[in-house]
Amino acid sequence: MKLALVGIGKIALDQHVPAIAASPEWELAATVSRSGTVEGVEAFTRIEDMLEARPDIELVSLCLPPVPRFAAAQAALRAGRHLMLEKPPGATLSEVHALADLAQAQGVSLFATWHSRMAHAVAGAKAWLAGKTIREGRITWREDVRKWHPGQDWIFEAGGMGVFDPGINALSILTEILPDPVHLTGAELDFPANRQAPIAARLAFTQNIFADFDFRQEGPQTWDMEFSTDAGKLALRMGGNVIEIDGQPAGGEDSIMGEYPALYARMAELVRDGVSDVDLSPMVQVSDAFTLGRRNIVEDFEFQKETQ
Amino acid sequence: MKLALVGIGKIALDQHVPAIAASPEWELAATVSRSGTVEGVEAFTRIEDMLEARPDIELVSLCLPPVPRFAAAQAALRAGRHLMLEKPPGATLSEVHALADLAQAQGVSLFATWHSRMAHAVAGAKAWLAGKTIREGRITWREDVRKWHPGQDWIFEAGGMGVFDPGINALSILTEILPDPVHLTGAELDFPANRQAPIAARLAFTQNIFADFDFRQEGPQTWDMEFSTDAGKLALRMGGNVIEIDGQPAGGEDSIMGEYPALYARMAELVRDGVSDVDLSPMVQVSDAFTLGRRNIVEDFEFQKETQ
Repeated sequence: MKLALVGIGKIALDQHVPAIAASPEWELAATVSRSGTVEGVEAFTRIEDMLEARPDIELVSLCLPPVPRFAAAQAALRAGRHLMLEKPPGATLSEVHALADLAQAQGVSLFATWHSRMAHAVAGAKAWLAGKTIREGRITWREDVRKWHPGQDWIFEAGGMGVFDPGINALSILTEILPDPVHLTGAELDFPANRQAPIAARLAFTQNIFADFDFRQEGPQTWDMEFSTDAGKLALRMGGNVIEIDGQPAGGEDSIMGEYPALYARMAELVRDGVSDVDLSPMVQVSDAFTLGRRNIVEDFEFQKETQ
Repeated sequence: MKLALVGIGKIALDQHVPAIAASPEWELAATVSRSGTVEGVEAFTRIEDMLEARPDIELVSLCLPPVPRFAAAQAALRAGRHLMLEKPPGATLSEVHALADLAQAQGVSLFATWHSRMAHAVAGAKAWLAGKTIREGRITWREDVRKWHPGQDWIFEAGGMGVFDPGINALSILTEILPDPVHLTGAELDFPANRQAPIAARLAFTQNIFADFDFRQEGPQTWDMEFSTDAGKLALRMGGNVIEIDGQPAGGEDSIMGEYPALYARMAELVRDGVSDVDLSPMVQVSDAFTLGRRNIVEDFEFQKETQ
């Protein structure tokens, strides 16, 4: 089946293009981007032109930042194409509800992806936690925005989500593996004085679960989740790729595919079965943090460090 | 049927108590409040004590601020009581999803109320707009927080929602009457430097709809919505209580009951039919505004004006 990739930036080139190249089900038949291209693939600059020129393309996969994503998503669905959304699926919850309704009306499949849920150890962690009672949980998600999003100013604009861009990956795992749903009871968000999205956040949830998100982490990067239960301890490390039970490595690598290959395999399944997969709970948790959170103003952030 | 009213503050005394007194279906059998009471009604200070002492009370109606509301709501549902929530139904969307699931599991009715949807002209406006195309809309919701929420500091705390406490009333009407759903495309929120919730907000939606919410309006108060359509103009004034078509008063007073009597009548219906009514779309719009909105810092706000 043929697909078009829209938004040829870092995530498209690092993850989507290799995953599609390795897929037995999908062929990259076109790209849409103001400036990015993929060698040997027909390139468009406007999605409307691609949709008109290439009725043979069944799936549109969107890697645009959240704010401009809606118009492209709507155009693809209106043209009767299946649609796959990089996370987060939009800038607002309301627009994603509208896309889900539109996909249903058009009889096509919509997949709001959460790539971290496809990490190797997530399914194993969910299976281990089933039926257990959480006593305490601690999520530490600390990475260097300069390394992972070099110069990407959109991430700190209104709607760019700031540290919730990686933090939502942790929340997508949390909302997947817990036996009972959580909700936020308090949050603190640190906004740089010169930016419109937070650079760090501390979240308190029910079930004694706490999260520490920070975009200013130089040196070692941390994407860890640790839970104490009534029947032992579980840790997920490396963004859901490594599992430990009571401090010992515990395999649990239930998926043999990488995250993005697994997403494209799942998309093929959804199309075959004629269904959608739109779980907004990670994004609801982020919206709740923005609504409920206390805001602190912290020092300015620039991607370019001042030289001595 | 007997009910207990929890949170005996301004809204409970101004609206709920008279509405219940006038209801043919409900009897106010108990109150729960740290300090407030209603003459002639058994008063408790803890909801757990009321639930234990009064198994004859079928409905709990909560008028607490959003942040402390969840624990009381959960206690009532766990005790097998029907539950009615003042707007907004909670401090987070996730917790209201959890309450809806709990109500379903317990086999009781949950009603997330939006009193402004019961205003006299709302049903008429919805009927008139059906099948028409919106060209432009303008919502002006400007009131004096000192008049309507005197000294209520919680409204400016994190999770208190600030100007969205009245603004969500406009959004509850908007999401009820429009033929097609809207979503936010941009927002600006003004936070007083000494407060954690916005005192004013300007919202831009799809369908060329704009909203102007302000909590600093002295003198005349405004709760207006105006729409231009392909077949004329509609205005809703006085918070949804008065309707004009093409500038002329147009009756449209489809409900003869006041807003709160209509809510209690609807609650009785839900209990009779064994169903719930939990439409979170107004709250989703508010969460979207907090998530997507630009934040401006404006001057400090104090309830007590400085004397000369």
